[in-house]
Amino acid sequence: MSQLMENEAFKAFTTYAAIVTLKMILMGPLTVYFRFTRKSFINEEDVAWKSEEQKKKLLKTHPDVERARRCHYNDLENIIPFFFIGLLYALSGPELSSALLHFRIFTAARIFHSFAYILVLPQPSRAISYFLGMLVTFSMAYSLLSKVFFL
Amino acid sequence: MSQLMENEAFKAFTTYAAIVTLKMILMGPLTVYFRFTRKSFINEEDVAWKSEEQKKKLLKTHPDVERARRCHYNDLENIIPFFFIGLLYALSGPELSSALLHFRIFTAARIFHSFAYILVLPQPSRAISYFLGMLVTFSMAYSLLSKVFFL
Amino acid sequence: MSQLMENEAFKAFTTYAAIVTLKMILMGPLTVYFRFTRKSFINEEDVAWKSEEQKKKLLKTHPDVERARRCHYNDLENIIPFFFIGLLYALSGPELSSALLHFRIFTAARIFHSFAYILVLPQPSRAISYFLGMLVTFSMAYSLLSKVFFL
Repeated sequence: MSQLMENEAFKAFTTYAAIVTLKMILMGPLTVYFRFTRKSFINEEDVAWKSEEQKKKLLKTHPDVERARRCHYNDLENIIPFFFIGLLYALSGPELSSALLHFRIFTAARIFHSFAYILVLPQPSRAISYFLGMLVTFSMAYSLLSKVFFL
Repeated sequence: MSQLMENEAFKAFTTYAAIVTLKMILMGPLTVYFRFTRKSFINEEDVAWKSEEQKKKLLKTHPDVERARRCHYNDLENIIPFFFIGLLYALSGPELSSALLHFRIFTAARIFHSFAYILVLPQPSRAISYFLGMLVTFSMAYSLLSKVFFL
Repeated sequence: MSQLMENEAFKAFTTYAAIVTLKMILMGPLTVYFRFTRKSFINEEDVAWKSEEQKKKLLKTHPDVERARRCHYNDLENIIPFFFIGLLYALSGPELSSALLHFRIFTAARIFHSFAYILVLPQPSRAISYFLGMLVTFSMAYSLLSKVFFL
């Protein structure tokens, strides 16, 4: 095992990054689930064995599918920057307690964000978790760039 | 060269990750190619030198362009988690044979997935390659988290 | 601080990768800004306190919002591969001058690309910055794979 994996802040990053990445992956099968239960497909080959009449009915959008996709893309827009900045931040030798605080708030905010999006919780619950996650990433970027800056 | 690059499992990750990333990038120019050959644009400035009448005809969607974009986004949804989990997995000191198995199956599955999507191969070819790639990522995440877990 | 962060090429990667990632994140709030100023929302819960009549008017797309989203997704499609390939390239022990050249051209190209997209600069300004950024990533991938190749 590499020396990196003996560093506690890096181990913490590994754990939380894996958790939010797995959460993000699961939005894919959730969309597939909605496509089947809401009967809303987008590729013709996915309904190839149906009659022409049924195809027309199946090849349309459904609000629940579109919502799951928006939730998925919001994850991509936010969890990817967290991973990029967080990885470099974890390598820059942060205080363990400070690193844990960042990773825990981000993970909690993004898990809550998905529930708020899919279950249509009233605003501003979704907006708050969105900006909270972003704030964590900005805070890590600030900490990182104040230590490592080489233009 | 850093010590990491002397580790064989990490070198294997580097190679396969670069290959699937290059494959993913190429979906961009493929979409551009379809936009020109199918005459389907989305930004007005891209057809600024055309007459008003031609503009209207050019600024519309085309199924081939939309298919290439969906294929591209499916790559983003799946290759990004592979990179995140795979990088941390490669750092966690896996068996070389096991690591190679994961990387090879994932790379083959995603290359096949793109052909299945763009060439409209009959289902369930695309579905199988989609879930196979996801399974590889889950397997790496399981192996990673069973070695490194620090909440 | 890890030994990696004492390597100058890696420090340069860290700095430029953080800058382009922060630029990419900011496309999110820019889209939110356009949603409010152009009164164009997509989720019903975002306009829940409005009358039924107002809701209908608010729940529609607006060209500026869609443009910001396309710019954001173009970033995801290009900055993510830069990070993946660039991280591995920075670990493969490149010449500092060569690494800086790659990182600087990419960062400049992507910042210019966003201005070209949002401010609707005449083509081919956007196309050139798009392909220039991609060329940098290909060049790093070539340099990386010619040093590290383990199938």
